[in-house]
Amino acid sequence: MHTLILGGARSGKSALAERLATASGREVTYIATSQPGDAEMAARIAHHRARRPAEWGCVEEPLALASTLRLHARDDRVLLVDCLTLWLSNLLGDVDPTRFIAERDALLATLPTLPGEVLFVSNEVGLGIVPMGELTRRFVDEAGRLHQSLAAQCDRVLFVAAGLPLTLKGAPA
Amino acid sequence: MHTLILGGARSGKSALAERLATASGREVTYIATSQPGDAEMAARIAHHRARRPAEWGCVEEPLALASTLRLHARDDRVLLVDCLTLWLSNLLGDVDPTRFIAERDALLATLPTLPGEVLFVSNEVGLGIVPMGELTRRFVDEAGRLHQSLAAQCDRVLFVAAGLPLTLKGAPA
Amino acid sequence: MHTLILGGARSGKSALAERLATASGREVTYIATSQPGDAEMAARIAHHRARRPAEWGCVEEPLALASTLRLHARDDRVLLVDCLTLWLSNLLGDVDPTRFIAERDALLATLPTLPGEVLFVSNEVGLGIVPMGELTRRFVDEAGRLHQSLAAQCDRVLFVAAGLPLTLKGAPA
Repeated sequence: MHTLILGGARSGKSALAERLATASGREVTYIATSQPGDAEMAARIAHHRARRPAEWGCVEEPLALASTLRLHARDDRVLLVDCLTLWLSNLLGDVDPTRFIAERDALLATLPTLPGEVLFVSNEVGLGIVPMGELTRRFVDEAGRLHQSLAAQCDRVLFVAAGLPLTLKGAPA
Repeated sequence: MHTLILGGARSGKSALAERLATASGREVTYIATSQPGDAEMAARIAHHRARRPAEWGCVEEPLALASTLRLHARDDRVLLVDCLTLWLSNLLGDVDPTRFIAERDALLATLPTLPGEVLFVSNEVGLGIVPMGELTRRFVDEAGRLHQSLAAQCDRVLFVAAGLPLTLKGAPA
Repeated sequence: MHTLILGGARSGKSALAERLATASGREVTYIATSQPGDAEMAARIAHHRARRPAEWGCVEEPLALASTLRLHARDDRVLLVDCLTLWLSNLLGDVDPTRFIAERDALLATLPTLPGEVLFVSNEVGLGIVPMGELTRRFVDEAGRLHQSLAAQCDRVLFVAAGLPLTLKGAPA
């Protein structure tokens, strides 16, 4: 039972994922993909951390998501990945241009083999005008393709706006 | 019975709000938050105005929304606020940086105390790549947070695309 | 029975349109509006073409959409237009500034008269911050207005995210 939660900036997608993790009744491990590169990002990370229950495990992994999921997945555990957008952004900015393909393929190959439950949070970024720049267009394209691939593998896909979920696939939240 | 109507640019959200206002059977007061700063904006305002029935009241208020709502709310009246996005933009651009927080908190405190009905129209702006700039990111963040806060207080939340509403909360439009 | 399929970049809207065309049981003619101006666009066009069945007809028409639809529409045929966004972009960039209005009005006048079935694919571009530039704002405005006008004429309107359709109007996909 894996879930993909898509939504815009400040749409409440992380809060929804946290509610679903709590409601699952399983032990929760939070997998943070962010890298606190500047003060603004550090403030966002602190804001998210303050909201999470103290008993949740937390793992920080900006790049090697598939192996991190394999290492921590257990029947009685839900892994909350927040968020795929930053992971994708980290990979596309990596010095090794082949790393993204390898990590993406590893994620898609690993997901169906994992015990327990995974909740993915990701930003929908393809519904506006794409600003100039080849890297930006590639980011939007790869995010869209990743969402399609993961949505096909997940049991439930939700789209969040104003904190409220629309069900794209599976049971309503 | 308050309603939040979210949608993209030219999605038909204002026209939907106007239909709901008419269908309410109540007297309608239109609350315009725009400031006709240039010719392009003046043309948009004129376009909206030409579509509204002549018997509707109209109040222009770019900043002090909570006190305007308090002043005009009545049991037999629907207040149509078009739109929150411009109000937010006006506040974030105000010379007094504390004004936004004060006005936003006043709006959220006032809404549950109002008689009658309020229809809010707002742009969803968080589903694309956010262009560079700290003010732009702040605008997207504050719009998203405001939508979540208002959606929690409203009885009905609608998402409009191509003139057609999806129901996020409450009864279908 | 005409259908409008809206979605973001890489949302799976073209693949959905192709599945619906195949499922219709009718002969399919694909109407491509793109102009292979550079290597990146040529690669996108080749990617789409490789996915289409060999027996589908294909017509390339960047501007004169209404007359192309009239020429090819038949009771036993579905016309798949991919995509309106590029057509709109071609028209707004045309040397003749009156061409866009004429072609848009011709499309809206023609659609109700056509035999058979039309599937339109278009990008939703109005849900993010609109980057600076009068032409960009006009493009977003005209795309939104066109979607509203076509949605009013179509029997079915779908919004696609992560390859999964939400039904805005008509029967679910």
